[in-house]
Amino acid sequence: MQKPLDIAVVGSGLVGSLLAIYLRRQGHSVHVYDRSPDIRTITFSGRSINLAMSHRGWKALDGVGIGDEVRKIAIAMDKRAIHIGNEVKFQQYGKDGEAIYSISRGVLNRKMIDLAEAAGAIFHFEQKIWDVTLADATLHIGETERGEWTDIKHDMVFGADGAFSRIRHRMQRQSMFNYSQEFLEIGYKELNIPPNPDGSHKLDKNSFHIWPRGQYMLIALPNLDGSFTCTLFMPFEGENSFASLPDRQSVEAFFEKNFPDSIDVIPKLAEDFFKNPTSTLVTMKCFPWTFADKVALIGDACHAIVPFYGQGMNAGFEDITVLNECIETHGDDWVKIFSEYEKSRKPNADAIAELSYRNFMEMSSSTADEKFLLQKKIEKKFSAKYPEKWQPLYSRVTFSHRPYAEALAIGDKQNEIMAEVMAMPDIFEKWDSDAVEEMILDLLRKSPLDHS
Amino acid sequence: MQKPLDIAVVGSGLVGSLLAIYLRRQGHSVHVYDRSPDIRTITFSGRSINLAMSHRGWKALDGVGIGDEVRKIAIAMDKRAIHIGNEVKFQQYGKDGEAIYSISRGVLNRKMIDLAEAAGAIFHFEQKIWDVTLADATLHIGETERGEWTDIKHDMVFGADGAFSRIRHRMQRQSMFNYSQEFLEIGYKELNIPPNPDGSHKLDKNSFHIWPRGQYMLIALPNLDGSFTCTLFMPFEGENSFASLPDRQSVEAFFEKNFPDSIDVIPKLAEDFFKNPTSTLVTMKCFPWTFADKVALIGDACHAIVPFYGQGMNAGFEDITVLNECIETHGDDWVKIFSEYEKSRKPNADAIAELSYRNFMEMSSSTADEKFLLQKKIEKKFSAKYPEKWQPLYSRVTFSHRPYAEALAIGDKQNEIMAEVMAMPDIFEKWDSDAVEEMILDLLRKSPLDHS
Repeated sequence: MQKPLDIAVVGSGLVGSLLAIYLRRQGHSVHVYDRSPDIRTITFSGRSINLAMSHRGWKALDGVGIGDEVRKIAIAMDKRAIHIGNEVKFQQYGKDGEAIYSISRGVLNRKMIDLAEAAGAIFHFEQKIWDVTLADATLHIGETERGEWTDIKHDMVFGADGAFSRIRHRMQRQSMFNYSQEFLEIGYKELNIPPNPDGSHKLDKNSFHIWPRGQYMLIALPNLDGSFTCTLFMPFEGENSFASLPDRQSVEAFFEKNFPDSIDVIPKLAEDFFKNPTSTLVTMKCFPWTFADKVALIGDACHAIVPFYGQGMNAGFEDITVLNECIETHGDDWVKIFSEYEKSRKPNADAIAELSYRNFMEMSSSTADEKFLLQKKIEKKFSAKYPEKWQPLYSRVTFSHRPYAEALAIGDKQNEIMAEVMAMPDIFEKWDSDAVEEMILDLLRKSPLDHS
Repeated sequence: MQKPLDIAVVGSGLVGSLLAIYLRRQGHSVHVYDRSPDIRTITFSGRSINLAMSHRGWKALDGVGIGDEVRKIAIAMDKRAIHIGNEVKFQQYGKDGEAIYSISRGVLNRKMIDLAEAAGAIFHFEQKIWDVTLADATLHIGETERGEWTDIKHDMVFGADGAFSRIRHRMQRQSMFNYSQEFLEIGYKELNIPPNPDGSHKLDKNSFHIWPRGQYMLIALPNLDGSFTCTLFMPFEGENSFASLPDRQSVEAFFEKNFPDSIDVIPKLAEDFFKNPTSTLVTMKCFPWTFADKVALIGDACHAIVPFYGQGMNAGFEDITVLNECIETHGDDWVKIFSEYEKSRKPNADAIAELSYRNFMEMSSSTADEKFLLQKKIEKKFSAKYPEKWQPLYSRVTFSHRPYAEALAIGDKQNEIMAEVMAMPDIFEKWDSDAVEEMILDLLRKSPLDHS
């Protein structure tokens, strides 16, 4: 049992709430601060992308026994539904039984706060943290940045306050703090596919829907109420951009031309398009993540990534799993716990950032490419026959607990092998042949995938 | 003639002072703010690396007719003096007559402020700028960050306030602002070689002295008073690091073993070592550099680089040259001026950042490598015979006004060619032969260096 501490968690989002539950289970007193009102008391903002919970997320939830509670509000998606013209092609994500799970961010966040309160965490909403004194874990709270502040001292502070973290903002002003933030030229906008009158879904419920169009794409993820949350990703400027769609008429013409099968299912297209904000996408990296045994960053606050691998929340939850392992190993030695935690997580945070960045091209372009789909088919067949020899990259990231950094490294090797395979002149005819299988086996003998 | 504006320059360093002179010549009223006391009234800090002024720096000074004033306080260095064991090897930097110029940062800064005041700029020292309102170019000044502030509005603000710029700090908190800061694991410390009793220099005066030792190195640059400013670069941690030299005894033993010929010329070694701070080295990149026609960053404030190419000040001065060209082209259209300025400078700032980062290895390791020195000799000979076909990278960066980005791109191509040349099995015997020359000519025919 750990020595009980008085711990502050800044941020009542998904990672902050789950961390609060873990810390309560270890016997600490936990205060969670958030600058926003209680999300349970307000309507959602119209700027979220639905979550895709996968293995890493579930492990962290099951670690404190709340996985089943969350499964009740999740919808399994076992495949991509790829919309091209008026046709839909399906591409299974993993093996039979493997799926990612669509959850509304708002619904999950409300549930998590309920669960954290039930575990004894105390929430303080509409408390604006402007600064932190790192050396003694003191929070500085006030109405405005330049107004009067109240100082609140805890034994320890966790910054779970997202990509624009105020806690990190202070750490960033120290010497030897490495930091980067890079915005994509692509923004996103939320749209909505409402349910049928009978409450059923207008599109296949158990699919992640994609309309891949190269430089831009539309996606849709199912909600419990029969609706889908849609997200349009496209460049801010240039041809086929948000800037090129200034009015109702241009938006409707654009969708009719480029997403013809979406017209019937998005009735309030223009209304939502101009009501909902156009949001930005940022990759943020930093190091170190901790200060002595006083302050630690977790989740988006130390590794914000773009959403194209559906791993943002999963990576944040896995931070908690790893932190918890460090606590179990090192007891009350928080200097050691924090140091092991950041050392273990940093390379994996960098790896999932890279994988997520790359995956925009896969989603928006490659899924519309016959050759890419054939490659996935070859990998799938080979992997089914030789599961020990070949786990596809997507599965390593999504249906595994092995480190992201390993997935990235092995994925790069697999890509080299598949590039040779796909370069065979008549690959579309003989993809199913023994020759292809022999070729992969031979290439694997020459350069084995595993480091071990 | 431009419409006269009321312009604030934040930062009275080298770039801020020179920019003030340019803006005064264009008829603007110029106020320069600095958080520190007037450098003309204080002793220097013991944490500077001597400057190496080269072509780009001189061009910016000559552009307002003050080059000759500055030449009076500069010492030409036409070669590297490479100290290995008790031997010294010389390596000429460029063609005969080409040199870089050693100047004390403090001495130059004092001179520049004098010149800016003479040009009519008004300096305000010990004025701490904590924030700026970008939309209306208002500076917020006060004793402390949390205390009372005075607001001062100008027509336009230039942030010339260095790597830790407060002006940039505000821009950084806007959406779509890309930013990175990355610290080296290597720090530096200033040491001193005093003059001989008769005022002469203890080492060759017209050389840039280097003691290359792989992971660490010592350098020394001449001053007017007969002394040299030395800088020790070494890792913070590990073997041969600042952490490994905790006391007088270990420092002296380390220098005796590794820099034997420095012992006699650095009399106050241990005293300076523990009196002077160990400073950090950071590469900082960002974009955009400007906000509407109200605020612009310049110099280290938008592109701080590590000092290993001696181009930090030169790059900052070249910003001013380019800004001035944009002003001359676009008159009073400051939106256009700022946009052209940042678009033109950004790729070159990135290129010199990369070149500077790479050059640590060249200085600290390659200059002690026979093969590297031979390669330079081959390049030099070829370049002398075919000056139109081959300008060495160092000369492109240092003795040229062509863009840094071009130097980087062409330098990479040259390196590929030289790698093939140096791979010849008997290159040490036949480096001077026609065969080598023919090989380079042949490789150049196959892949010409220039983009044009």
